[in-house]
Amino acid sequence: MARLLKGAEAARAINENSLQMIEQLAGAGIRPCLGLVRVGEKEDDIAYERGIEKRCDGLGIRIEKHVLGEEASTDDVLEVIRRLNEDKDVHGVLLFRPLPRHIDAEKVQNALAAEKDVDGMTRASLNGILTGDDIGFPPCTPAACIRILEHFGIDPCGADVTVIGRSLVIGKPLALMLLGKNATVTICHTKTKDLASKARRADILIASAGKAGMVTEEFLQSGQTVIDVGINFGPDGKMCGDVDADAAERIAGAYTPVPGGVGAVTTSVLAEHVVKAAMRENGL
Amino acid sequence: MARLLKGAEAARAINENSLQMIEQLAGAGIRPCLGLVRVGEKEDDIAYERGIEKRCDGLGIRIEKHVLGEEASTDDVLEVIRRLNEDKDVHGVLLFRPLPRHIDAEKVQNALAAEKDVDGMTRASLNGILTGDDIGFPPCTPAACIRILEHFGIDPCGADVTVIGRSLVIGKPLALMLLGKNATVTICHTKTKDLASKARRADILIASAGKAGMVTEEFLQSGQTVIDVGINFGPDGKMCGDVDADAAERIAGAYTPVPGGVGAVTTSVLAEHVVKAAMRENGL
Repeated sequence: MARLLKGAEAARAINENSLQMIEQLAGAGIRPCLGLVRVGEKEDDIAYERGIEKRCDGLGIRIEKHVLGEEASTDDVLEVIRRLNEDKDVHGVLLFRPLPRHIDAEKVQNALAAEKDVDGMTRASLNGILTGDDIGFPPCTPAACIRILEHFGIDPCGADVTVIGRSLVIGKPLALMLLGKNATVTICHTKTKDLASKARRADILIASAGKAGMVTEEFLQSGQTVIDVGINFGPDGKMCGDVDADAAERIAGAYTPVPGGVGAVTTSVLAEHVVKAAMRENGL
Repeated sequence: MARLLKGAEAARAINENSLQMIEQLAGAGIRPCLGLVRVGEKEDDIAYERGIEKRCDGLGIRIEKHVLGEEASTDDVLEVIRRLNEDKDVHGVLLFRPLPRHIDAEKVQNALAAEKDVDGMTRASLNGILTGDDIGFPPCTPAACIRILEHFGIDPCGADVTVIGRSLVIGKPLALMLLGKNATVTICHTKTKDLASKARRADILIASAGKAGMVTEEFLQSGQTVIDVGINFGPDGKMCGDVDADAAERIAGAYTPVPGGVGAVTTSVLAEHVVKAAMRENGL
């Protein structure tokens, strides 16, 4: 029976850390504030927004919401971003993505001031991951994966890590972040041959392909740590990850459940980034 | 006996391609120009500079040289970069690195206009490698490795590639560029366990550790392509790569010699980047 890496436990530790910083900020008369920018009324966005609001309320982080209509133009979104850049009381900004297709996402994302980029969407943040510079923040989901490993004492240093998936929001930044922690990283994708054997030989397997149950028994090895980043909905309408949970429980050494794994840590990481942005801005 | 992947052959093809573009530019009254910025009189820099001048002379690319004394300040170098940014007749700029320690390299490198960054040193260029955007250019050495593979018809798509070394000038960008070409990439470094087996299992092995002869017989597999990026000097004072050339010749399917491999392609890639920068700037 594999050890269950529960997101809630890691989230609690992150929140405690945030609360200490929030106290320090309060002593200096500062209340951290997250600007949320949403275009349209997508269900996914609204569900995530609710999670963020709940987390921030619990911690005492102020939220400033900017909701634009589905038909908003690139200039409309840019205008909101520009105002948030200038607002000294807003420390971090999250823009729900993907944006509607008619909006120039590249332009909008890079308009955000790097120091307020709490979800790694600007060039400066992504570059920080590549170079190790402390500009902006990494995207929240890969950061959540790293925090789960840290929390449960699973050290990536020297470990063989296989990352399935190479998206710019998860796979690539996570691979580079793990490399920065001295893991030996193999990045796999749809063109990878004999994927199962590459997954099996890893000490730490990261499943971020976005395909329900694609990581089956033959991808797994006893003792292995499996981090499941997938959020999918199975034929029964239930939320599930990329990993066959039964197989993981039977074979792996440890794994993150879906739901209740990586997803349960993301909003805590986001909140922590906002608090850190407030600390940095105030030289604390 | 392994096939020898001679840099000169790949360089010739790249130069021919550049010459066609240079002709097109000449038709529009434009002569491509490379700005060279050197601080101090380091032997390595001067040797590289000579190689660049010879290549550019041969192709008809103008060179504008800016040599500063070893004692030049960060501001002195910034001033030169700023002038080159503004000079419409200069299409690309190469800054010899590493800079003397007293200079803020980060600041100087990022002061260069991305569109003139023909050696991938700005954040914009590096980020382009991560995102696939066409901003700036990749660093010349990893680009040379890719061009050698292309020239000799060795397709990285679907291939298992092991990269030894994770520097920001070679290992990391090369790994990302190969990933962009659909290779399954494993990035290895000093903390990697059982390095030899990870090297051996690769279809394409990239040696960029900077250690003379570290890739020995046990790192190699029959049929494998070995790209040797190392430039070292052995105990006999002779230039050598990271790969034991005798072992590569005996075991590998194909390999790049040192000297005469990757190094022989770098100046051609640099020249091509300058020409492409001139084309882009003039909308050709």
